[in-house]
Amino acid sequence: MSTAKTNIPFSRESLEQTLKRRFFYAPSFEIYGGVAGLFDFGPPGCAFQNNVIDAWRKHFILEEDMLEVEATMLTPHDVLKTSGHVDRFSDWMCKDLKTGEIFRADHLVEEVLESRLKGDKLARGEQVKEEDEDEDKKKRKKKVKEIKNVKLDDEVVKEYENILAQIDGYSGPQLGELIVKYNIANPATGGKLEPPVEFNLMFDTAIGPSGNLKGYLRPETAQGQFLNFNKLLEFNNDKMPFASASIGKSFRNEIAPRAGLLRVREFLMAEIEHYVDPEEKSHPKFQDVKDIKLKFLPKNVQESGSTELIEESIGKAVATGMVDNETLGYFIARIYQFLIKIGVDPNRLRFRQHMSNEMAHYASDCWDAELQTSYGWIECVGCADRSAYDLSVHSARTGEKLVARQALPEPRTVENFEIEIAKKKFGPKFRKDAGTVEKWLTSRTQCEFEDLGKELAANGKIVVQVKGVDGDVELDTDLIKIEKVKRTEHVREFVPNVIEPSFGIGRILYSIFEHQFWCRPDDADRGVLSLPPIVAPTKVLLVPLSNNPELQPVVKKVSQALRKEKIPFKVDDSGASIGKRYARNDELGTPFGITIDFDSVKDDSVTLRERDSTKQVRGSIEEIVEAIKDITYNEGTWAEGTAKLKPFEGQSA
Amino acid sequence: MSTAKTNIPFSRESLEQTLKRRFFYAPSFEIYGGVAGLFDFGPPGCAFQNNVIDAWRKHFILEEDMLEVEATMLTPHDVLKTSGHVDRFSDWMCKDLKTGEIFRADHLVEEVLESRLKGDKLARGEQVKEEDEDEDKKKRKKKVKEIKNVKLDDEVVKEYENILAQIDGYSGPQLGELIVKYNIANPATGGKLEPPVEFNLMFDTAIGPSGNLKGYLRPETAQGQFLNFNKLLEFNNDKMPFASASIGKSFRNEIAPRAGLLRVREFLMAEIEHYVDPEEKSHPKFQDVKDIKLKFLPKNVQESGSTELIEESIGKAVATGMVDNETLGYFIARIYQFLIKIGVDPNRLRFRQHMSNEMAHYASDCWDAELQTSYGWIECVGCADRSAYDLSVHSARTGEKLVARQALPEPRTVENFEIEIAKKKFGPKFRKDAGTVEKWLTSRTQCEFEDLGKELAANGKIVVQVKGVDGDVELDTDLIKIEKVKRTEHVREFVPNVIEPSFGIGRILYSIFEHQFWCRPDDADRGVLSLPPIVAPTKVLLVPLSNNPELQPVVKKVSQALRKEKIPFKVDDSGASIGKRYARNDELGTPFGITIDFDSVKDDSVTLRERDSTKQVRGSIEEIVEAIKDITYNEGTWAEGTAKLKPFEGQSA
Repeated sequence: MSTAKTNIPFSRESLEQTLKRRFFYAPSFEIYGGVAGLFDFGPPGCAFQNNVIDAWRKHFILEEDMLEVEATMLTPHDVLKTSGHVDRFSDWMCKDLKTGEIFRADHLVEEVLESRLKGDKLARGEQVKEEDEDEDKKKRKKKVKEIKNVKLDDEVVKEYENILAQIDGYSGPQLGELIVKYNIANPATGGKLEPPVEFNLMFDTAIGPSGNLKGYLRPETAQGQFLNFNKLLEFNNDKMPFASASIGKSFRNEIAPRAGLLRVREFLMAEIEHYVDPEEKSHPKFQDVKDIKLKFLPKNVQESGSTELIEESIGKAVATGMVDNETLGYFIARIYQFLIKIGVDPNRLRFRQHMSNEMAHYASDCWDAELQTSYGWIECVGCADRSAYDLSVHSARTGEKLVARQALPEPRTVENFEIEIAKKKFGPKFRKDAGTVEKWLTSRTQCEFEDLGKELAANGKIVVQVKGVDGDVELDTDLIKIEKVKRTEHVREFVPNVIEPSFGIGRILYSIFEHQFWCRPDDADRGVLSLPPIVAPTKVLLVPLSNNPELQPVVKKVSQALRKEKIPFKVDDSGASIGKRYARNDELGTPFGITIDFDSVKDDSVTLRERDSTKQVRGSIEEIVEAIKDITYNEGTWAEGTAKLKPFEGQSA
Repeated sequence: MSTAKTNIPFSRESLEQTLKRRFFYAPSFEIYGGVAGLFDFGPPGCAFQNNVIDAWRKHFILEEDMLEVEATMLTPHDVLKTSGHVDRFSDWMCKDLKTGEIFRADHLVEEVLESRLKGDKLARGEQVKEEDEDEDKKKRKKKVKEIKNVKLDDEVVKEYENILAQIDGYSGPQLGELIVKYNIANPATGGKLEPPVEFNLMFDTAIGPSGNLKGYLRPETAQGQFLNFNKLLEFNNDKMPFASASIGKSFRNEIAPRAGLLRVREFLMAEIEHYVDPEEKSHPKFQDVKDIKLKFLPKNVQESGSTELIEESIGKAVATGMVDNETLGYFIARIYQFLIKIGVDPNRLRFRQHMSNEMAHYASDCWDAELQTSYGWIECVGCADRSAYDLSVHSARTGEKLVARQALPEPRTVENFEIEIAKKKFGPKFRKDAGTVEKWLTSRTQCEFEDLGKELAANGKIVVQVKGVDGDVELDTDLIKIEKVKRTEHVREFVPNVIEPSFGIGRILYSIFEHQFWCRPDDADRGVLSLPPIVAPTKVLLVPLSNNPELQPVVKKVSQALRKEKIPFKVDDSGASIGKRYARNDELGTPFGITIDFDSVKDDSVTLRERDSTKQVRGSIEEIVEAIKDITYNEGTWAEGTAKLKPFEGQSA
C-alpha cells in the first residue's frame, strides 16, 4: 500500500510512532504497565475527535433536525436481556488449562491456519509478499511466534483457504471441531486447549449497595434511545418520521484486543435511530443525493465468492432494489458525504452488504461503510434497517405501548376479534389470579382469538394454561365473550421501523490517520498528516522568523485577529529553524502556517503557507485571516480562498 | 424562597413538572420502572449541557491554553488503590437484617432527628415553616413517613440540634453510637439496625476474560490526567506551569440517591489539573481578576458556628492569606466568572472553605463554589490545592519519575548522602533478593542515609529488615558505602503541586434551572426559564402569525439568514395562538422570538421579542439577525444589541 500523495510505501510503524510522539493517543495506564484495549487521547487527539463530533452533530443532528438524547451507560440487566445482549452478545474463547492462557477461538484458528499456509509457501520456495510478512510480524507478536517451513498437501491447502474465506461464519462448536480436526494447540507451548465456551462481552457490575440489581455497561447507545421513544415522539409533537441521536461511550470486554484503536474495550459511538412508517420508507430529500456514486459490495457478489465492487449511483441502487429503500439509501449517501468531508479517502471506502447469515433475523437490510487500512477492510459505520424489532420487544416486555399514530385521510372500517370480560363474576372466581388471567386474555393475537372463539362457541367453555397460575384455567360463556366487532378507525396505529446508522468514531479516526499520512520525498523521516482544515486539531501555526522582539507586535496583532474569528491557533516562537517548526507542525496536521518576517513589521503583511503543497501567498493580516476562515469553515479550496492574494517565493521551507 | 424576577414563591414541584414535560431530563429506564440515581437528558437538556460544555471549553481550555486529555473510565484496581479510593472512597451504611433494607447512616440519623424536632415543634404548638414542610414531604417519601407530635425535653432538643450542625463530621462508629443512644430504627417498621459498615462507592467490574484483572469505573477524571503527566509535560515542550483538563463521565454507587440531578450515580465532570512550581504560586494574570468581589465563608467563621458571608475582592482575600495563593485565587475568580456567564445567580453563590477536619491531610487549601437551591447550599465546584500528593504517590508506586525541571539561573552546589553498592559482591550474596535489597537501599531518604551511614561507620555493618526478604539483611563496608557527596546542579528537579478546579456539571445545570425559573404574575401556570442566550438550547423561535401560505417565503428567508450565521432556531407553525406558542417556548428557555406577519411580506421586516421582558423591536431581517448574533455570541445586552431598532407595540403576547 502506498500513501495518498506520493508513491512512498505506507509504513504503519512510522505512523504509529508519529501519533505516539505527538500524543494523539497512547495506551492508558502506561506507567502501570497498561491495560490491553484501553487508550487515552492526548491534546491533538482530543481536538481532532472533538472536531469530528462537532462536524457529525452539524451534518446529522442540526441539518436533519434530529433529537439528541443522552442516556446512561449503566444499564440494568432486564433491558439488555430483552434486547438480546445478555444471550447473544458474546464471542467464543478457548482456554489452555495448563497455562491459564485464553484465546479467542476464531482468531486463533485464523492465525494458525494462515501461518501454516505461509510455511507451506516458504517450503515450496514461493515468495511471501512483503506486506503479508509485515502483517504477520504484528500477529506473531501476539500468538504464533514463528512460521515453520512445512509443505502441506495441495488438498489441505485448499481446505485451509476455504475455511479462512468463511472464518466469520463458524459457530463455537464448529470452531471446536476445526481445532480438533486440524490439531490446533496453544501456539506458544503446544499445549492442549479446552473446547470453545461462550464469553459474554458486556462488563457487568452491581448497582446500589445490596448487590441485587445487576447491571452492565452498555454495549451500544441504541437501547437508551428506544426506551425514550414515547417521550421523544411527544417532544416532536407526535410527528413522524423523526430521528433521535446519541453520542457517547460504549463498552465491549474484548477477549484479546489487538489492532490499536480498531479493537478497544471502551469506545465512542455516534448513533442515529430514525423512526419511520413501515409502509412508507421513501425520503423527501432523497432527490438531493440520488446522483452520488458509491462503491458497493452487495451480498450476491460476496456469496459468489467475489469481492469486486460495483460503482453506481445510490439512486440506481435503490431503484434496482439492491438497497432496500429510499430512507436507507439516503442515510448511506449522507454517511458517504460525512466521511469524505472529515478526511476519508473515497478510493478506500466501500459499502458492504451483510449476507443473509450475518444479519440479525429481524433486519431487512444492512450495509457497512468499510474503510481500507493496513489491517484490511474495517467496518466503521453500520447502516441497518432493523424493522420494528427493538420497539416491539421492549413493548412486549414492559407492557408499555411504543407506537406512532397517523390520522387517516378517510376513516376506515376494521373488523377485529375482541374479548369482553364479565368483571363481576371474573374477580370473585379468580381472586388473586384475576389480574394475571385478564392480562393473558387481553394480550392474545387475532389468530388466537379466532381459535379461542371457535372453541368457546363449540364447547361453551375454554380451558387454557396461564403462566403464573397453577393448574388449568377454565372460562365459560358467563365469564367471557369473544366476538368479531366492526369499528370505524380515524387513526392508524403502528410500531415504527428503525433505520440505524451507527458510527464507531475511534475506528474512523484511525482510518483517517492511515488515509492522510504520507512523507515528503525529500524528508522521509518526518510524516505529514493531511487532515482537512475543518477537523484539524489546530488550524494555524504562527511562526515569527526569529525571536527578535521587533516581531512581537505583529505576532500580537495576528493573534488578536485569529482570536476574534475564533480560529484555533498556536504560536511557535522557539529558536528552531522555520523548516523544523513547520515539519513539527506537519505531523500535527495543522493546515496553515503564518510566517511573520521583518517586512511584516513595516506593512503588516504576512505569509500564508499551505501544509500539503507548501505553496505560499502574501497579504495583509485581514486578507490572510479571511482566506483561512473561508477555506476552513466555508468549504472553500485553497485556490478559491487565496485567489486575490499574490504568490510568495521568499524564505520558504 | 422567591424567584429571581418576581415575588411569586419558587415551587420546586412546578419546576420539576416543567423540566419533565419539556424533556430536559427524565429518570432512565422509566418504562422498566427506573433505577434510582440515573437520569437521561432529552433534546433541550442535551443542548443546554452541550452549550455549557462548549462555554467551559472556551472559558478554560482555549482561553488558558490548557491541554485537553480524554482518559478511559475503566480503571484498573492498582491505580485507584494508589490514589486512595479503594480504601477511602466510601460511605457508612446500616442494614435492617429483617427487611434487607439499607440506609445511608448519616442521612438516616439526620432525617430521624429532624423529624423528631419537627414533631416536638408541633407538640409545642409552634409553627413549622411552609418551606420546611415541603422539604419534609420530599424526604418522608423516602424514609420517615410521618411526623409524630411528641414533645422532647429542652435538653434533648439542644443535643439534636448540636448533632445536626455537625452531621457531616461523624465517623461510622460514631454514627453507630448515635443510633444506639437515640434509639434510631428503621423508620418504616421500627426494626433494629445493624451497626454501620463501610460501603465503597466505586462500581467494580472485571476486565478481560479471565476475571483476574479487577477494575472500577472511575470516581473522577483526575487520575487519568496525573498518569499522563510526563507525556503532557513533553507535549508542552517541558514548560511549566501548565494545565491539563478533562470532560467526561464519572461514577459513584450512591447508597440511596435522592434529590434528583444533585445526587446521581453517573455524572458529567469537567476537571482541571494545573501543575505549578511549589515555590512559585503567583499567577501572571492575577492582576486581571484581583478586583472581582466574591462572597466567602472562610473556615474560621464556620468554626465559630456562624455562616455569615464575607464580601471581599479576591485580591484582598489572597493578600490577607485567607486564600492560600494567587493561582488558587485566580481559579476561584475564573470559576465565578464562568458560573455567572452561564446563568448562576451571583446572590446565590458562595465560596466555602473546607475546615481542617474536612480537608484531605495533604491539601493545603480548598474552597467549594456552593450554589443555593431548594435543597440547601450545594457543592458544585471544588477548587483545591492538592500539593504534590497525587504525582508523588503514583511515582512511588510505579517507580516512574513524575517531575518537572527548571534550569537554574546559576549553578548551585548541593551536598547529599549517596550510597555506593559493590555490585560484584552484592549480587552473589543476595541472589534472588538482590534487586529487592538494592531498591530498598536506594530509596532511603536523606535522614535515613545519615543514620545508616553513622551506624555503618560505628559498627562496620548495618543490619536491617527489608520487606519481601526473609530474616535480617546484613550489609558491611565491603558491600556498601554511604558518603556525603558534593555536586554542582544546573537544573532543579521538583514534583509539581496540583491546583484542581473540579466541576460537577449536572449539579450546576440543576442549580441554574432553580435560579432562572419563574412565573409571570399574569400566568402562574406556565413557567419561564431565563437561560442566558449563550447556553439556551435553541436561540430563536420563528413564529409566522398564521399558517397562511403567503407568509412562507419570509419564513424561508429568515431561516436561511439564521442558518448562514449558524444560529440554532426552530419554526413553530402550529395552529396555536401566538401567545401559546411563546408560552411553550418560554418553558424551553428560548431567548428570542421572531414574529412574521403580513407586513413582513411587503417589506421583509420582522418583529423580535425578548423572552424575559417581552419587549419587542422591529427591523429588517438582516438587522434582526445581527442583533441576535450580537446579544448571543458577543455578550451584548438587549439594549446594546437593539439600539438601532425601533420599539414595536403590535400584536404582542
